This record gives sequence, structure tokens and C-alpha cells, in this order.
Amino acid sequence: MSIVSTDVRPAYKVADLALAEAGRHQIRLAENEMPGLMALREEYGPLQPLAGARITGSLHMTVQTAVLIETLVALGARVRWASCNIFSTQDEAAAAIVVGAHGTPDAPAGVPVYAWKGETLDEYWWCTDRAFDWSAEAEATGADWVGPNMILDDGGDATLLVHKGREFEAAGAVPDDQPGDSEEYRIILATLRRTLAETPTRWTTVAEEVQGVTEETTTGVHRLYELFARGELLFPAINVNDSVTKSKFDNKYGIRHSLPDGINRATDVLIGGKVAFVAGYGDVGKGAAEALRGQGARVIVSEVDPICALQAAMDGYQVARLESVADEVDIVITCTGDVDVITVDDILSLKHLAIIGNVGHFDNEIDMAGLAALPGVEKVEIKPQVHEWRLPTGRSVLVLSEGRLMNLGNATGHPSFVMSNSFTNQVLAQIELYTRPEAYPVGVYVLPKALDEKVARLHLDALGVELTTLRPEQAAYINVPVEGPYKPDHYRY
Amino acid sequence: MSIVSTDVRPAYKVADLALAEAGRHQIRLAENEMPGLMALREEYGPLQPLAGARITGSLHMTVQTAVLIETLVALGARVRWASCNIFSTQDEAAAAIVVGAHGTPDAPAGVPVYAWKGETLDEYWWCTDRAFDWSAEAEATGADWVGPNMILDDGGDATLLVHKGREFEAAGAVPDDQPGDSEEYRIILATLRRTLAETPTRWTTVAEEVQGVTEETTTGVHRLYELFARGELLFPAINVNDSVTKSKFDNKYGIRHSLPDGINRATDVLIGGKVAFVAGYGDVGKGAAEALRGQGARVIVSEVDPICALQAAMDGYQVARLESVADEVDIVITCTGDVDVITVDDILSLKHLAIIGNVGHFDNEIDMAGLAALPGVEKVEIKPQVHEWRLPTGRSVLVLSEGRLMNLGNATGHPSFVMSNSFTNQVLAQIELYTRPEAYPVGVYVLPKALDEKVARLHLDALGVELTTLRPEQAAYINVPVEGPYKPDHYRY
Amino acid sequence: MSIVSTDVRPAYKVADLALAEAGRHQIRLAENEMPGLMALREEYGPLQPLAGARITGSLHMTVQTAVLIETLVALGARVRWASCNIFSTQDEAAAAIVVGAHGTPDAPAGVPVYAWKGETLDEYWWCTDRAFDWSAEAEATGADWVGPNMILDDGGDATLLVHKGREFEAAGAVPDDQPGDSEEYRIILATLRRTLAETPTRWTTVAEEVQGVTEETTTGVHRLYELFARGELLFPAINVNDSVTKSKFDNKYGIRHSLPDGINRATDVLIGGKVAFVAGYGDVGKGAAEALRGQGARVIVSEVDPICALQAAMDGYQVARLESVADEVDIVITCTGDVDVITVDDILSLKHLAIIGNVGHFDNEIDMAGLAALPGVEKVEIKPQVHEWRLPTGRSVLVLSEGRLMNLGNATGHPSFVMSNSFTNQVLAQIELYTRPEAYPVGVYVLPKALDEKVARLHLDALGVELTTLRPEQAAYINVPVEGPYKPDHYRY
Amino acid sequence: MSIVSTDVRPAYKVADLALAEAGRHQIRLAENEMPGLMALREEYGPLQPLAGARITGSLHMTVQTAVLIETLVALGARVRWASCNIFSTQDEAAAAIVVGAHGTPDAPAGVPVYAWKGETLDEYWWCTDRAFDWSAEAEATGADWVGPNMILDDGGDATLLVHKGREFEAAGAVPDDQPGDSEEYRIILATLRRTLAETPTRWTTVAEEVQGVTEETTTGVHRLYELFARGELLFPAINVNDSVTKSKFDNKYGIRHSLPDGINRATDVLIGGKVAFVAGYGDVGKGAAEALRGQGARVIVSEVDPICALQAAMDGYQVARLESVADEVDIVITCTGDVDVITVDDILSLKHLAIIGNVGHFDNEIDMAGLAALPGVEKVEIKPQVHEWRLPTGRSVLVLSEGRLMNLGNATGHPSFVMSNSFTNQVLAQIELYTRPEAYPVGVYVLPKALDEKVARLHLDALGVELTTLRPEQAAYINVPVEGPYKPDHYRY
Repeated sequence: MSIVSTDVRPAYKVADLALAEAGRHQIRLAENEMPGLMALREEYGPLQPLAGARITGSLHMTVQTAVLIETLVALGARVRWASCNIFSTQDEAAAAIVVGAHGTPDAPAGVPVYAWKGETLDEYWWCTDRAFDWSAEAEATGADWVGPNMILDDGGDATLLVHKGREFEAAGAVPDDQPGDSEEYRIILATLRRTLAETPTRWTTVAEEVQGVTEETTTGVHRLYELFARGELLFPAINVNDSVTKSKFDNKYGIRHSLPDGINRATDVLIGGKVAFVAGYGDVGKGAAEALRGQGARVIVSEVDPICALQAAMDGYQVARLESVADEVDIVITCTGDVDVITVDDILSLKHLAIIGNVGHFDNEIDMAGLAALPGVEKVEIKPQVHEWRLPTGRSVLVLSEGRLMNLGNATGHPSFVMSNSFTNQVLAQIELYTRPEAYPVGVYVLPKALDEKVARLHLDALGVELTTLRPEQAAYINVPVEGPYKPDHYRY
Repeated sequence: MSIVSTDVRPAYKVADLALAEAGRHQIRLAENEMPGLMALREEYGPLQPLAGARITGSLHMTVQTAVLIETLVALGARVRWASCNIFSTQDEAAAAIVVGAHGTPDAPAGVPVYAWKGETLDEYWWCTDRAFDWSAEAEATGADWVGPNMILDDGGDATLLVHKGREFEAAGAVPDDQPGDSEEYRIILATLRRTLAETPTRWTTVAEEVQGVTEETTTGVHRLYELFARGELLFPAINVNDSVTKSKFDNKYGIRHSLPDGINRATDVLIGGKVAFVAGYGDVGKGAAEALRGQGARVIVSEVDPICALQAAMDGYQVARLESVADEVDIVITCTGDVDVITVDDILSLKHLAIIGNVGHFDNEIDMAGLAALPGVEKVEIKPQVHEWRLPTGRSVLVLSEGRLMNLGNATGHPSFVMSNSFTNQVLAQIELYTRPEAYPVGVYVLPKALDEKVARLHLDALGVELTTLRPEQAAYINVPVEGPYKPDHYRY
Repeated sequence: MSIVSTDVRPAYKVADLALAEAGRHQIRLAENEMPGLMALREEYGPLQPLAGARITGSLHMTVQTAVLIETLVALGARVRWASCNIFSTQDEAAAAIVVGAHGTPDAPAGVPVYAWKGETLDEYWWCTDRAFDWSAEAEATGADWVGPNMILDDGGDATLLVHKGREFEAAGAVPDDQPGDSEEYRIILATLRRTLAETPTRWTTVAEEVQGVTEETTTGVHRLYELFARGELLFPAINVNDSVTKSKFDNKYGIRHSLPDGINRATDVLIGGKVAFVAGYGDVGKGAAEALRGQGARVIVSEVDPICALQAAMDGYQVARLESVADEVDIVITCTGDVDVITVDDILSLKHLAIIGNVGHFDNEIDMAGLAALPGVEKVEIKPQVHEWRLPTGRSVLVLSEGRLMNLGNATGHPSFVMSNSFTNQVLAQIELYTRPEAYPVGVYVLPKALDEKVARLHLDALGVELTTLRPEQAAYINVPVEGPYKPDHYRY
Repeated sequence: MSIVSTDVRPAYKVADLALAEAGRHQIRLAENEMPGLMALREEYGPLQPLAGARITGSLHMTVQTAVLIETLVALGARVRWASCNIFSTQDEAAAAIVVGAHGTPDAPAGVPVYAWKGETLDEYWWCTDRAFDWSAEAEATGADWVGPNMILDDGGDATLLVHKGREFEAAGAVPDDQPGDSEEYRIILATLRRTLAETPTRWTTVAEEVQGVTEETTTGVHRLYELFARGELLFPAINVNDSVTKSKFDNKYGIRHSLPDGINRATDVLIGGKVAFVAGYGDVGKGAAEALRGQGARVIVSEVDPICALQAAMDGYQVARLESVADEVDIVITCTGDVDVITVDDILSLKHLAIIGNVGHFDNEIDMAGLAALPGVEKVEIKPQVHEWRLPTGRSVLVLSEGRLMNLGNATGHPSFVMSNSFTNQVLAQIELYTRPEAYPVGVYVLPKALDEKVARLHLDALGVELTTLRPEQAAYINVPVEGPYKPDHYRY
């Protein structure tokens, strides 16, 4: 446990000031690659649109997130943070944020961060709860307990805690564990039992005061739509995930970058000349296939959706089922978001020392459980996150990151420039919900097209892109404002 | 005038049976490239879903359209056809359709076609009107006048005639020409004056009997949405243009094919090593840029939409305004759908003998009028559809197809395989509107996602694509039916 | 026969001045695409290095060749020309050259050209002989018969005529036809019998006076090396074919341009999504594969040379034998220079209406004879140079240009910019041999590296290429002159 | 100093058996990626062509080299090894080789290796000398001193030591240090003073007994040609560097792999959308440009050689001088082998935080000395091998690997598959020189084309490449043997 932020910052003891300094270097470099966020600081800094906002964030505590947090602060917000994943924290980034940009551990510039690399699940939910507790500031206000009035979420765990907490507060008690409950759900229940004991109306208060949540990912968005469909959503939500500048950039260009990076760091195998199999030709698969072809691989794609399959064919890729070609495949990459896309039978059919990696979703895209249960199979660690599985056939395969997202496990995930797009959407969404609550009754929204275009616009200068401006008569001819938005909502890009 | 179909087929005299035979050869080859239509014949032929349908078609009378028409007939429809453009008819295709697949001029297999290459505007609207008149068949029924019960439209001219005709019939008279009326509008009015004289309730009848229209293009779709917004739309419409398998295929892959084809046929200039400027990075621009890069050009893109501009940058293209780079540009291609994208000043700045072509929309994407009005300019025909414009600067430029769509004027437009996607959408849309009228109250619809996916599915075998099938537990995991549809409506592909 | 140039130009009657004017337009456009030749005119025009040269040329009489001829004239040479192929003459180019750049049929600017599209073999060899006969000029000199002192050859026919003629003159007679002689060889013998009768020492004189030949192609170069190896070569030769700026540009970038052009003009079939098979991965195959991939095809390559096969794999292509994949192939392109690369069995295995084209060498790359001899086969002309062969299997294939070079037969061959590279080599080679005979004892040479680099240099400005200049200390460090040459002779580029 | 092999293996103490085991894992994985070497073991193992060979190797002691060494041993050779670079040893590979494939430290399978990561120059030359000393084996033979009869060299240091040693032995003494001598040369002299004292005819013996050297790199080959030109070369040499399967694969495909890998590991910066400048478009530059474009960068190339410049343009790249575009460049990569390609002025003109990396040659491609001497410049280590240089302009640049080869310093160099090509050439060259000494009088040779093709052939199966076999009549037609070689020596691939 390298970093723990306690609640009262003046008393906070940073484990490692050198770590904070290393983080500060990286933040500075990342700022250069996150022009959207830096432009927002310049544009909105003087206006302080988030003055008064108390934002609880639950999102991977990386260097890029550090730039996001400091942008929110620069726009007037007060912020508390937890990670949304037990492994993804970059400790130097967390340390730097706690210490603050120009400050020392005792200076007021820092932001409380509850995150470190390698949390237990217990610690994880304790951290998440801590990010909601502004009570130390409450001393000044005299209130009993103070929570956030905005949430910035990734995956929906912060939102879940509020909804469950309020539900149990309304019921007067947290239910007992049930036989089928997962380990994590038991920990959530235990966490809420504790908070209910401490502050019986904590989550009810939060639910009332929160003006909205902005959600980063597919999974979290999915949960929000379900809550809303069931009439249980407690506050408005903006679905950042489906902004064009998020989904089409993050998925396609992020993976194009991090997939070959992960293969290289994990295996040092020449991709050129190899046969690579890409399961799924959505945005992630499109980026993966392009990256592998760009390195000289022959790429074979599989698809269940005939439209995407036809796109793959028109882009020049062979489209085949894995079982038809497995014995010629050197590299298998899953990009689907579905389960058991690579079965044990598939694995047994691959070439000796074929590489298997997942950039889709959970580790169940590959039947890792089935592989582990295979009689006679042997798992040998070549290095961290790279395992040789020796099969009963006498052949082996190399599995990256235990079947989990290898672009995170074997590389460093999305680069800063890609995250700048996502996070600029996040900040604009926070401003929308916080400053125009009347425009957002409870519901799930995507950002207005104009803001989506704005996100893109803020990233052009850094790439030397010269945008053309419509003349008024041209704008009139195609019936759009000169300054946009330029496309109907259903436009596919 | 090479082909005119008169109404009474037994008496019809085909100008040129050899022409019809040549057309039949081409239709046979095109059938091999239009697997979607051929699959529909196989699937629906026995069911005859269009039995009873009288379809008036207004769409370019090409070889591909011939395969469409014969597919409609194979599904039970009776069909009458006009072209939607005075230049686009391929006479051999028209002749072949009139003669019929296996028939002779006297056999019943033929379909009345009112179209020939190089119509006058007068002839054009006469042809369109003729495609509505089934009265010869009416003799048998005893009805006064018989029109269609379905329309298949491209650009909306057939739909326009019905709406205007019914409006004037209701008013009791066609209005007089007004000073600002265009030449074409005067011809439309004259046409309707004649029909009103002949059959005073002709268009009222049509408007009542037509179950719906399926519309091919952006322009026609735009008109339909406007009619509907004003409450004037008379029957339901399916917007075929915005099917994924139309817009993303037609625009991107069609242009990728026909743009270099047109440049080559027009100029025989080596594209490799040249600097090519692509104005607009929508689907058309994406296809254009890919084609030019694939031939070794260095491609510079311009955009007004920052999202598309960012996509262009992420795809590795320089993004610049034309005025910044005009003096290094060898080839300029417009892909915007807007006006005056290339101004006279731009033209004056280009390299000597730079090539200018338009694959976007109308000839006003390039300021052709301004160019012609330039003092001292001289226009020299190098060959048909290729003109050297000698500029007062001493330099020249080569303008393709007079600034009109050069992929049509200098090449042969979209190839059959691309049109097979569009036209399979058309046929499915006709079946929807004709067989399930209750599902389509007056309004403008896109095809259900399942049918869009079906269109793609029908084109896979021809390309050797092996589609993967979801196992039921996989379908359940991502919450879609095994057989699709697989994506939410807002999915961007 | 549209154009015949007789020897005495004042009396020459041009068939068609309009044709000459059309040719002149095309020459003017081609000049813009042939910057190497135009730069030579500028650099060497004032120096007249070819003053006194009498050049007999035997090379396809196209628009590009017209620019070559006028460059030779601009450098001081007198020129006579024949085509090296009975079909390849562009009559408008021939007419323009005969008429001359600024002239009329009676003006002195024209050059005698003996070439028209569609010669018989008799006419072909008569034309070749005519290009050698400068006797009309001899009247002034008083000599009996005057021939060239330089030859510019393509394929070696002009060189062959001199060598055979001299051999038979030395023997005192042309031998009788022998049973196994080809038709063409009999015509050559007949031609030489006639010249021997007219001027018994004609070819002996030519052989003595010619300072050298510059040869354009592989075939001609091969003949030259054989002649030299047998000790029979009569004058020095420069092998233009193996200049880097010829072989690596012509073959790769020329085919990249003209292959898809030919497929499009011949068939209008969408290349995207198709499976294309490229036989041979030399420079031609590399260009072909790149072009097809650039249009979205999936490309499969075959090779016999393991080095080229490994290159293809490293470039991301599947490498397979045709028989392994024939049943999934839509387009077959031969790029080998060998015989029977596509056998009848291969053809029988292809998909219905698969397209077969040759860009390698002769029509025997495809077993056309075997195909024609197949029992039950039927050949249907779809249009000129495009034939459907209906096979006994019930399937068909489309054969382009009867199996001959389809980039010539269905498209227009190499574009001007590519030919500018070849022809600039030709002119520099002519200058070398003519002005520095002492440097070239009888033998076969490639152009010095410095001239090869010069050819490239002269093509850079037109493409906007900025060349970097070595600083003297940089040149010293890598031990090359500042101005080049920069690479050892064995460098592979 | 992690590993030192002393001369008497039974007494050798391996520092770290766990290290050896880790190396053995990596060697096993590398074997799968080095099919050429494994195929040689299978083909030649039974024949033992290197029985009796005593090979002194001087080449980076990596995992790949381990597979090379064990291949030489499998073919009968006895081997001693030093690294050719003080930093490049992978200690686990060295340890594994010393221990031997199946052995223990006391087993005879190991090979003496004198190499560890981070040698001093003193240690380096001591190691090199040790690799020549087989005296421990001499006890059995009774000879005074025993050296190698073959050398396998990379960069020529082993060859240099023999030549200098013999020269000084002949002179009777090693000369005194001179004022201008480099530090390294003084160390070489000291080393030779010591050997002369120990064994006065050591190098004379070696020079007599060595049958030849096979040299890996450009630098070493250059030295060999110079020695030969001066008549000082003491034994024949095979230039492995200029085999096609070395130069065209190593340089192009190796860099395509390791360049983006190095950028990613060093900076995690998104390459997509960035402007990348590639100095030099030889094989290395071609691979670099392709890799960067494949990741979505816009690539600008510079060249001094007009032929390569024209190739770059034809491949679709902008070609410009750095000073013309420096202010839009995000990433600069040098691929030239020349000095001061990036000057301090260039560096001052780049964008803030532009990345500078060298994959060409020495660190002097970038004027690192000039940069360090710039008044006011500040160097900040971001992490090992990544430094921010803060410039007096207020901007910074990131320099990778201190200007040395960043594909080695920031990534892991050429992957195994690429090295398998080089090393298969090495082994075949060793067999040639050792088994056919009569065929190689003193001189510098490249491998016969047939062996070059063989190297390629041995790498095809691993990639699933199906080679086509010429039929005898096809081979006859193009006048090559059925089994090759297929191309003339000057063929450029």
C-alpha cells in the first residue's frame, strides 16, 4: 500500500515525495498530449463554471486522470477521488495529485485520492466510500455529513453505491448476505452496513444533492439505461461513452496503438509475416486489424454481424470462423465483448506457441476456466502477465494478461491523446449537468452534437490540423449553422 | 432517340434488337455481381410477395437497374420505368428490359421503359408521366385510368409529380407560370396541365392508391422529410438512403472504385507521387482518400466538421485549407455536397494542368459559372468530358465532366456489387410497404436493422465470407437474438 | 492504314491534319507529365550534343514516344522512326510527329515515322527497314546509301535486322527458308533478300557506322547479352532496362497504375472485397499486389523464388499455389514472364466469371492455346479485348486481351510520368554513346549510377519533392561526392 | 559483473543458475521464431559439417545469439564467445549458454562465454582475447597455444585483434601510445602488449590457422574491403551483411517492428495523427516510414539520393528538408548512417516535446555534442534512456537513448525471426568457408545466390507460405534450374 489519502489534508502524510515528483514529471508530459483538457482550462478557468461543485470521481487513477482532476479543480470544483479498478492506479500519479501541482503535502492544492495499485476488494470499497465523504469540510458548515453534488463515474460503482445505499436506508436496514451473493456483493453490503451505522441518511442525502453523473464506459452506461428503464434512476446521467469523440476514437485509435504495443512488450515476437486472427470487427476490431496489418501481418477477421463482416471484406480482410483457420493462426486477438469467443477446442487447434490476447472486455472472452480445467494442462510463467500453457497435445500457447485486457496488462492502455478526447467529454458533461440542471430532467443523455464537435475541435491544433470554415452561403446551402453542429444525430462517421 | 417504349407492348417496335442482345449479355454478367438481388429472387420468387403490385420506377435506367427491375418482376410485381436523369440511361439496358429476358419484342416478358440517353427536359417529364399510366391494362378492368400502387424513386421526381398533381387537381387548375419559375418547373406545370385536361383526377387517384414510396437518395429523402414536416406527405416512405448497407457502402466503397477509374479514363495521368486534395472527409471523402493513397498519391484533406477533420488526421492525412496548399496540388476532388467549395481564386492558384473533379453532388461544388465568366479564360475540349481551361495566368487546369459527377461522367459510376446493396434494400423496402401497410402509417422510415443486416448477409457468400454464428449463451450474454439484429440503432459502424 | 510517311518529306501527304492536331494536344499534356525529357531539352538544347546523330528508332509510336522523339530532335539529332509492335501505334501521335510541332506537312519540322495501328507483319518489317534509310539525304552528300549512326531499340528488332543483314551480306546471300522457320522469320528473310538486291552492302555500312544502340526492354537486353557472349555483337549497347529508374519504376509503379485501370475498363467489376491472385512477386507483382490491396481486394501471391515469397509474406500477403486456392479466386493476374503459369486445370477450378489478366510477358503465361483446344469450350466476345470463355463445367471465365498484356490491351499502358523516367534514361544513354564512344568498347553496359540518379533528380520538382543536400563533411563521412553517386552498384533500393 | 566464464569449464562457477534457467525458457521460445537455424540443425546435424571447427565468435550475446551458438555446436563446432558491445549482453542468455542446454555447470554441454551487460572497455578487450584462447584444450594436444580456425564477427573487432596482433608480432613489439590515440586504441595496444609477452606468436598462429571470417555488419564489411584493397587481409571473408535475406529483411522489417516498439516503451505517446519525420529512405527508412504510417502518423521523408527520394514520393510520402517542416514535426527518426543529420538548429525549431530517435547508426546522427554544449540547455531524465532536454527557447525535446540506436536502447532490437535470417546466413557462410576452403582464396565474398535463397526457403514453413515449384519446361523457358537460383546477381528485389 503505497499511498493512502486520509481525509484531513493538513494531516495527510505522503508516503513518498519522490514518487510525487516523478508523477509530476509525467503529468507535465501528459498535459502536452491532452490539448482538449488544457484548452478547457484556458477557456473556462476565468469563468469558474464548476465553482461550488463537489465532485466524487471513481475512475482509474492514472497520469491522464491526474490531468483530468486538475482540470476540474482549475474550473472551480472541489474533488475527491477513488480508482474504479484494484490494479490500475499509477501510484506516482496518485501521489502527485495528493501533493498538488505546486504544493507540498501541507499545501491546499492537493486533492484527496483513495487509490493505490493492488488494492484488496475490501480496500477498494472503503476507498470508494471515502471519496464520498466531505465531512471534514462540514465542520465549517456545521452540517452533520457532507457528500458530493456531482459524480464522475467509470463502470458505475460510485453510482451503484449511492443507489444501493439509499435503497437500504429507505428500507431501514441492509439485507443479510444470501447464499448466491458474490464475494464482492458481500463486501458492498458490509460497507453499507457500516455507513448505515455511521450516518443513517448518508446516501439519501447524496441522492438528493447530486445533480448528475457522467459515465465513461459501456458497462456503466448499460447499468444506467437499465436503472432508468426500471424507473429507479435517482439523478440525470450523461452517457459520455457514446460521444463520437469517445467511442470512435478510444476504441479504434486507442487499440490501434496499444495492441501491438502489448504484443511487443509481452513477447518480442515479429508481427510481420504472421497470421493474426481478430475476433470481432467493431471499432475495437477495426483498430486491431489496422494495427496488425500495419505491422505486416496477414489478418483474418471473424464476425457475427453481417454488416461488419461485409465491411471487413470490403477492407480487404479474409473473414472466416476460427475453427476453419485455427491451424494457421499465430496470433489471436478478441475484440468482441462476448463470452467464450475462444474455446478450449480452438486453443487446442492453434499453432505451437500461438499468442492469445484479449482487448475486448472481460477475461471470459477466452475460456480461461476451461483451459485451466483441461486435464494435463500446465501453466508456466514466462514473465509477469505472460504465461505459456503447455497443452496435452504437446503444443503450447502463450496467453497474455491471464486473458484480461492485454492492452492494459501488457502495455499501458490508451495513450494520453486518446484519453484527452474522453476526458474533455467528461468535463463538458460535468459543466452541462452542473450549470444547466433545468435542461436535464432525470434520464440518460448523450452530449449535444455541438459539444461532441467541440471536443474534436480542441484537439486539432495540437496535430497541426487546419479546419476549413464555411462561408455563410455555404452554411445556408446545406442548412447548418456556420459554427456547427454539422451532422444529424444519426450520422455514422 | 434510340429507344421509346410505347404503352401497348404487342405493338411496341424495338429500334434495335442487337442493342437488346448486347444489353442482355451485360445483364447476365451484372447478375453475377448482384448476389443480393439474385438471392431475393430465390428466396421470394416462390412466395410472390409483390403479386398485385404495380410499381412505377424513376431511377437511372442502367444495367444494374435492369437486374433490379427483373427482380421486382420475379417477385410478382408489374413494373413501368422512367429514368431519373436525362443522360444516365444505358440504351442497351433499356432495350434489353423492353424486349424481356427470354423474349422477343412481341413476348409478354418485357417491361415498359421510357428512357433513353440524352433526353430533353420535355421528353424527361413526358417519360415520367408515362411510367404512371397503366391505362392500357385498364381496358380489361373497365376502369377509367389506372396508376401504380407503389413508387420506387430516386431523387423524388415521381413523388413530386404525384404531390403537385394532386394539389392542382384539388385546386381545380394548374397555376400560371410565374416570372421566377425555372425552365424545368414550367415544363412540370405544362405536363400537369395536360394530364389535368386528360384525366382530371389522375393524381388524386394515384395518391390514394399508392401504398408507399421507397426513396434512393439524400436529395429525395430530404424532400420527403420536408413534406412530412409540413404535414403534406401523402403516403408512407422508406428512406433507403440511410440504410447502413446503402450509405456506408455506396459512398465509401463505390467512390473508392470509381474515382481513380474516372481520373484514369479522363487523363491517363499517373496518380502515384502526385499531391491530391480531397475536400470533405465524409463517407465519400473517406473512400476517395483511401483510393488515392492506394495509388500512391499524397493526400491532403479539408474539412469543416472538426470530428471528421480529427478522423482524417488520425488516419494519417494532412488536413489543410485549400488556399494554404493550392500551389502544390496536382489533383482536386470535391466530396462535400456544398457549393463553391472550389472557388475561382483556388483554381487560379493550382499547379499548371491540375486536374479538378467532383464526386460530391452538383456541379456547383466547383464555381464553374465563375470560371466561365473569368475574363480571358479559354475552354478547350481535349476529349468528351475533359476540358482544358486556359487561365489568364498562363496556366491551365483540366476540368472533368464540366464539374458534374466525374465518377459518372468519366467512369461508369458505382459498380454492380455496390448497387446490389442499394437495390436489395429497395426490394426489401418495397416488400415491407406493400405487404405490411398497417406497420407504416404516413411517415418517413428507415428499414428495420434486421433487414439492413439481411442485405449484408445476402452479399457475403459471393465474397467467400464465412460468418460466425453466435451460440445461444453468447447471444444471451450480449442480449441479442442469435439471428440478430446485433446492434442498437445509433451504432455507427 | 492511316499514316504512311514516305521518305521525301516535302512530298509527304498526311492523311489527316485533324488527327495530327489531336495528337499535338495530347503531346502538350504529356509534356507536363514528362519533366525529365523537358529538363533535358532545357539543359542540353543549347549544347546540341546530338548534332550529327542520325538515330533510327524502333519503339512503340505513342504520345510519350512523340515527346521522346522531339527531345532527341531538340538536342540536335535527326531521327527516323518505326514502331516495335504492330498494334501499339497511336495514330494521332504518329501524325503529329510527321507534321511537326509548329509546322504543316510541308514544313521541315516533322520527323519521318513509319508506323500505324494494325500493321501486318509484312508492313511491320517494311517500316523497320524504312527507318534505316536516309538515302534521300544522301543526294546532297553524294553517297550511295546513308543509314543511321545510332539506334534506339525496344525489343531488339532494329538491332536484329542489322546483325542478320550484315551476316547475309558477308555470306553473299540470304539463305532459303527452312521448314521450321516461323512466319515472321520468313518475312525477315524476304525483307533482307530485297535490301541485298537493292544495296548489297547496306547493313555492312550500318554496322560500321552505328556507334551504339540503347535498348529499352528485358527481351532486347537478353538478346544483346547473348550476342555479346557469342562474340557477335557489332557495336556497343547500353542496357537502359536495368537502370533503377527504369526497372524499379516502370515495373512497379507503372503496373500499380495500369492494372486496376485495365480491370476497370474491361469489366467495371468492383475490386473491393474480391479475392485476387497475383502470380509472381517481382517488381511487377509488387506493384500489382499493392494496387489491388489499395482497392480493397484480398490478395494472394504465388512465387517460385523463396526470397520474393518471403518478401510477400512480410508484406502481409498470403502466399499459396494457385491450385490450393483457385476455387476462391475472383481475379487472376500473371506477373511472371514464364509460360503456362495459368494452366487449363487452373482455369477450370476458378470461380464463375473469374477474371484472368496478364501483365507479365507474352500471352503464353496463360495456356490460351490449351483453353482454345478444350472440348466444348465456347468463346463469346463481350466487347473488344474482353471475352467470356464458357467452360464445359458450366462456369465461365473472362479473359482480358486474349491473354496478352492487359494493361496495354484494356488500358493505355504506362502513363507518361513513368515513361519519362525510361525515356530520360534513353536520351542520356544516346548522349553517352554518341559523345563518348571511346568510353564504350563493344559490350553491353548499364548507365553509370550518376546518370541513373540524374534521371531521378529531373523528376523531383514536378512532384514537389525537396531534396536534401549533403554538407561536405557529411559527404566525407560516408565517403561519397556531395553531388553523388551515393550508392554502390550492387545497392538494391 | 554477473557472469564470467573462466577458461576451464569444469571449474567454472555460474553466478546464477536461476538466471540460466530463465535464459533457457527464452531460448526455447526463440527457437520457435528461428526456423532457419532449427532447420539447419535438422539438415546438417547428422552430417556434422563443422566437426573440427574451432569458432571464435564476437557478436552481441543475446537470446538469439544463444540459438546461433547452439546451432553451431549442433553442427559439430567447438565455440568460444565474446560480445561485440559492452551493453548488449542479455545475462540470462549468457548464463544459459555457459550452463548448456541440458547440462549443469559441470557438464560438458556448455560453451565458454565471456560477456556480461555493462563491461568496461578493459574488460571488453580482455573478453575478446579470451574468446581466442583454446589453450586449455591444448594440454591434451601438447601444443603450446591453440586458437580458433574460424571467426564469426560482428563489427570486425575480433578480426582487428588478429590483424593488429600479427602485425606487431611481425614487428617484434607493440608500438607506444601516441598522443592522438583514442582511449580504446590504447586499451587494444595494452591488450596486445600483454599477449605478446605471454605468447609471442599467438596472433601469427591464429592468422595462419583461421580459414576465414564471416562478418555480420556494414561497418565490419567496410573494414574488410579496405583491408583487402590494401592487400592486408589475412584470410578470406564472407560478407553476410549483403545477403538479400540479411540486408533487405533485417533493415526493413526489423525496424518496422522495433521502431514503434521503442517509441511506445519510451514515451507512451499516441503515434496516430502525429507528424513524423524520417531522415533517409534506404531500407531502414522504408521500414520506419511504413511502421509510422501503419500507426496513423503523417510521414515526411528526407533524402539526399534522388532515386530514393523519388521512391518515397511514389510511395505517397511528402519529401522535404527538415528545416522546411521542423515546426510541424512531432517525431524525428534518423535512418541515414551519416553525421549531424539533425543539427542543433533543427532541434531548436521542433515542436515542444518533439521526440527524437535514431535507428541509423552512431549517436552522431544527431548532434548530441552540440546540444549538450548549448548555453542554457538542461537535461532531465524522465526515465532511463528517455531525457527531456529543456531548450533556451522555453521548449523541450525528448531524446531517446541519448541519441544512440533507440530500437536497441528503448526496445529490444531485432526480433528473433529477423535474426534467424541473418544467423542462418552466418551458419551457411561458416560451412562454406570451413568445408570448401579451396573455393575461397583470400578475398571478400557474398554468399552464393543459391544459399541466399536457401535461407529464405528455410523460413517459409513457419509462416505458412506455400512455394510454387517450376515445372521443368518453365525453368527451361526462363533459363534457370528448377531448384534455383532464380535471379541474376544484380537483381534488386
